[in-house]
Amino acid sequence: MSDKGKQIGDVAATFEADTGSAGIVKTRHVTVARPPDVLTLECGRTLGPVSVAYETYGTLSEAADNAILVCHALSGDAHVAGFHAEKDQRAGWWDMLVGPGKALDTEKYFVICANVLGGCGGTTGPASVDPVSGEKYATSFPIVTIADMVNVQALLLDRLGIPRLLAAIGGSMGGMQVLQFAVAYPERLHLAIPIACAAYQPTQAVAFNEVGRQAIMADPDWNLGEYYGKGRRRPDKGLAVARMLGHITYLSDPAMREKFGDRPQEARDYTFTFSADFEVERYLRHQGVSFTGRFDANSYLYITKAIDYFDLARGRASLAEALRGTRSRFLVMAFSSDWLHPPYQLKEIVTALRASHRHVTYYEVATHYGHDAFLLEREKMEGVIAAFLNSGIKSFGPLGSQER
Amino acid sequence: MSDKGKQIGDVAATFEADTGSAGIVKTRHVTVARPPDVLTLECGRTLGPVSVAYETYGTLSEAADNAILVCHALSGDAHVAGFHAEKDQRAGWWDMLVGPGKALDTEKYFVICANVLGGCGGTTGPASVDPVSGEKYATSFPIVTIADMVNVQALLLDRLGIPRLLAAIGGSMGGMQVLQFAVAYPERLHLAIPIACAAYQPTQAVAFNEVGRQAIMADPDWNLGEYYGKGRRRPDKGLAVARMLGHITYLSDPAMREKFGDRPQEARDYTFTFSADFEVERYLRHQGVSFTGRFDANSYLYITKAIDYFDLARGRASLAEALRGTRSRFLVMAFSSDWLHPPYQLKEIVTALRASHRHVTYYEVATHYGHDAFLLEREKMEGVIAAFLNSGIKSFGPLGSQER
Repeated sequence: MSDKGKQIGDVAATFEADTGSAGIVKTRHVTVARPPDVLTLECGRTLGPVSVAYETYGTLSEAADNAILVCHALSGDAHVAGFHAEKDQRAGWWDMLVGPGKALDTEKYFVICANVLGGCGGTTGPASVDPVSGEKYATSFPIVTIADMVNVQALLLDRLGIPRLLAAIGGSMGGMQVLQFAVAYPERLHLAIPIACAAYQPTQAVAFNEVGRQAIMADPDWNLGEYYGKGRRRPDKGLAVARMLGHITYLSDPAMREKFGDRPQEARDYTFTFSADFEVERYLRHQGVSFTGRFDANSYLYITKAIDYFDLARGRASLAEALRGTRSRFLVMAFSSDWLHPPYQLKEIVTALRASHRHVTYYEVATHYGHDAFLLEREKMEGVIAAFLNSGIKSFGPLGSQER
Repeated sequence: MSDKGKQIGDVAATFEADTGSAGIVKTRHVTVARPPDVLTLECGRTLGPVSVAYETYGTLSEAADNAILVCHALSGDAHVAGFHAEKDQRAGWWDMLVGPGKALDTEKYFVICANVLGGCGGTTGPASVDPVSGEKYATSFPIVTIADMVNVQALLLDRLGIPRLLAAIGGSMGGMQVLQFAVAYPERLHLAIPIACAAYQPTQAVAFNEVGRQAIMADPDWNLGEYYGKGRRRPDKGLAVARMLGHITYLSDPAMREKFGDRPQEARDYTFTFSADFEVERYLRHQGVSFTGRFDANSYLYITKAIDYFDLARGRASLAEALRGTRSRFLVMAFSSDWLHPPYQLKEIVTALRASHRHVTYYEVATHYGHDAFLLEREKMEGVIAAFLNSGIKSFGPLGSQER
């Protein structure tokens, strides 16, 4: 625990618990925006019905006052913790923080995570069947935004009987959803924990996403998005290149040096071919290829576009104005070596919140893991998050005047 | 001129001159490594004959003591300054520094620039015809290294009757060649000016190059490198993706924000399609497409591999040991916002040179242009370079004991 953690309170400083796994969990599905209802998207088009894949952990209290929504990042899904089967080798993507005795303690909290709209983890997206045509949407799927994703999260909460969240938390695109939720549903969110993100997609990050999209679209197997048919090949090569590129942005220069060690020292270690001579090349190639087995290229296009469109201040005078209507308490978390969303971008959120007289705590983790740190730095994150959640239990309740 | 420039001497502080264009220049060719000679490469294979495309500017003095070798970067060529024809719209790639009255003053110096081995600007590379098979080399071309490139530069100097250079200068891969030249030909280089580079290719930069190569190789038109035949399409889509990615690394986050302005503010500015909504997307797409008209994809593979293999300390105890045998005076130049080769990488060279008791000056340009700054920051570079070259004229001569 860093010294900064202690600023939050004694709970953080003394956080220590016997932790365990969330155990075997199952992905469930609900359908929202069923006729006659429909989901009106930010682009103006409508969509429905929308199937939502989600998982829950722990038990919702009778007062429904212990619910925490976890929002996933670009390549995540609803499977945030535990295992899908006894033989599962790999736990959910944020297992380090979600489970009995962990920061998001499933003995205390009811944790929910849903696959985002446009995704490929069970929620309606471009690989889903369009009920009108009976064919898969492919690129006839409408462009969705972070706001649209959050609207679907809210519809899911309606179905689960959760009028107000104790907290929403997420890193990267997950953090963008947290911010958007706080703005769109101020009465429904007590604690907001945006991590390793920004209030708008920075230009450099747009650039990386655009190159990833162009890599996918350059793959002839992409075929203008129509690759789901029988006998068709998927644009795996393009998607692998996009993913390799993504992974560079998730690491940092020092993290790479630590992770992949020193350069080969001897001439005999060079193959003098286009083989992967360096560990980093082998790592990236592996990441690229393995990603194609679990992700849909069209979803990659749609979700990166949603991220690129994100701008909380758009159409408003300032970010502070956009945040003025929020009613949440914020814990904004940054990572020192994150160059996709450097600390200054998180500090912009903090400055805007303070200008709007919102309740906000800023926490910067010293790390060299880069953007990936939000998936790795358990020890440096868990204390401050646990303490912040704990503080929220006491102040939670029907929206009181002190929150307005 | 920044304050730091003044440290170099009064010449830098007072650098001001009427400058002009190098005028109309012509690319010339010589053939080196002609039978019975042959070029033995670092990989162990041999190559020859090797055609070298080069340009010269100014006049070689009778004593042959005013020659400056300019080394180009990944996508550069021999055309460093001036124009190829009266109607040329675009001057050579370093026209800002090379010409009458400019930092590399062609009224005083004889400036030489050659396309690198493996390139596609006239020097032998993968698109050249293999004299043995009568076919283009394609991927039968041997893997070349920065050391091989520099050996070819030295053969060119032999042909031009230049036993010893007043200076060698270059940015990025050009800087790597300067360092390599100083190590491989200590008696032949008086002043070494490596700019925006490193003594070894850093892991993160290897990673970016590898993704670029994978993008090219993922293009079915690459066809394992065999795309030169009649009726064949070139792997333009893959090469464009590689180039787009490269351009991101040449800029900086602040430079992007300045260059591409603020985000669209109004909802109506979003197309809600996969079109290029943002200026940065249009810029990258343009850079990618226009590059394919002037560059060969196989050369991109070979040259990036040469860069990735570069490691001056490889097989030696330390970088300082590698530099101990040099006899040049060094001006090492870094750019504050360069994140492809951040200042710390240039400082490592300086530290190693000092540890080897070499004569070295470090100059860091404050800029937000990122790696691209070495092609843009004329005013911040020209004074210190001119002064350093001027100081070298006085101390130039047959290698004296003071240099040993």
